[in-house]
Amino acid sequence: MAETEKGKRTREAILSFATNLASVEGLEGLTIGRLATELEMSKSGLFRHFGSKEELQLAVVDTARQVFVDEVVTPARQSPSGLARLWALCDAWLNYVEREVFPGGCFFMAAAAEFDNRPGPVRDDIARNMQEWLGYLEHAARRAQEKGEITPEADPAQIAFELHAFYLGANWAEQLLGDKQATARARKAILHRLHELATEMAPPLPPVSAQIIQDS
Amino acid sequence: MAETEKGKRTREAILSFATNLASVEGLEGLTIGRLATELEMSKSGLFRHFGSKEELQLAVVDTARQVFVDEVVTPARQSPSGLARLWALCDAWLNYVEREVFPGGCFFMAAAAEFDNRPGPVRDDIARNMQEWLGYLEHAARRAQEKGEITPEADPAQIAFELHAFYLGANWAEQLLGDKQATARARKAILHRLHELATEMAPPLPPVSAQIIQDS
Repeated sequence: MAETEKGKRTREAILSFATNLASVEGLEGLTIGRLATELEMSKSGLFRHFGSKEELQLAVVDTARQVFVDEVVTPARQSPSGLARLWALCDAWLNYVEREVFPGGCFFMAAAAEFDNRPGPVRDDIARNMQEWLGYLEHAARRAQEKGEITPEADPAQIAFELHAFYLGANWAEQLLGDKQATARARKAILHRLHELATEMAPPLPPVSAQIIQDS
Repeated sequence: MAETEKGKRTREAILSFATNLASVEGLEGLTIGRLATELEMSKSGLFRHFGSKEELQLAVVDTARQVFVDEVVTPARQSPSGLARLWALCDAWLNYVEREVFPGGCFFMAAAAEFDNRPGPVRDDIARNMQEWLGYLEHAARRAQEKGEITPEADPAQIAFELHAFYLGANWAEQLLGDKQATARARKAILHRLHELATEMAPPLPPVSAQIIQDS
């Protein structure tokens, strides 16, 4: 029993390390051999936890997913459903980039770009996670619409696409260009859009002007 | 002289092949050995054209840049400067994704995600190209503002960020999720934003509603 518990904790520690490494260097470079060296473990010890590179990659995607749920979805669920929660999701999500939860920027953005042209179970798993997240944003937008908080003409799927795009833009500009204003720009764009969609029944949102952007 | 011309054409053919391959599989997998196998050339023959893997990668980035200029920037420059050109740039850019100019989706998006955490000359070159493109969009937005075609309150850098984000969102959803509505969604988002920014002095833009999005 104690042995099983210890095995579980070792597995979690390996996965936490591997997920951070993958966010910087990519999932494809994550081999059992590489991990064995970095963690000073034997390859056979690692093989007891993960039978193959692919199994390791899938476990890493699952770990990243759990981090995302804990850091973004769970805190946002404190806000009432509807527009307040839609904004809370976007805010928590940008926060997660700002706090550098993963050292290499958003794990899923990196994994998506790396695997979009590599068919197989890992790609499918990443796509499923991303589709689920887009669906969650769309659901939150639809809920806001049902509560009369955003205009009935809006298309929830289009809103989810746009909010997600601003986030991609922020992660991209921060990672590639080191642009420290990137998340502020995304917040500004998202708030502008949500204010535009809001009806008079909407809960209060932070003002767009509170997002300070310094001239470069 | 004929020999030099032949050498130049061989170099161009190699680079064209290598750029397409890199858009699918990434720049990092692009080795002289791999290219020699694919092109049925000798490694020493390839080394005469490119002294190192890094030199090859830099030449590929240059090739992709030239394709982007030919396919996106040059056609858009047919439109008068100001809002018409800003829209023409966005339209040509989405067209370039739709026509699958590179088999693996936008070359620069893939290269940016792959290299953002790999310091060195290749990363710097990709970042410089992307910064230049964002600057070009910003310049087009500022020009539209100077001509009184978009509202004076708007921030051209913020506009460039938002338009670019919609494009990222489209390329991402198309590549990862196979979403065939992705570029229509981006067009709709971009046109909505440009209509919102336009003054009464603005040239006509296509209506947002012309961008048909089918329910999934």
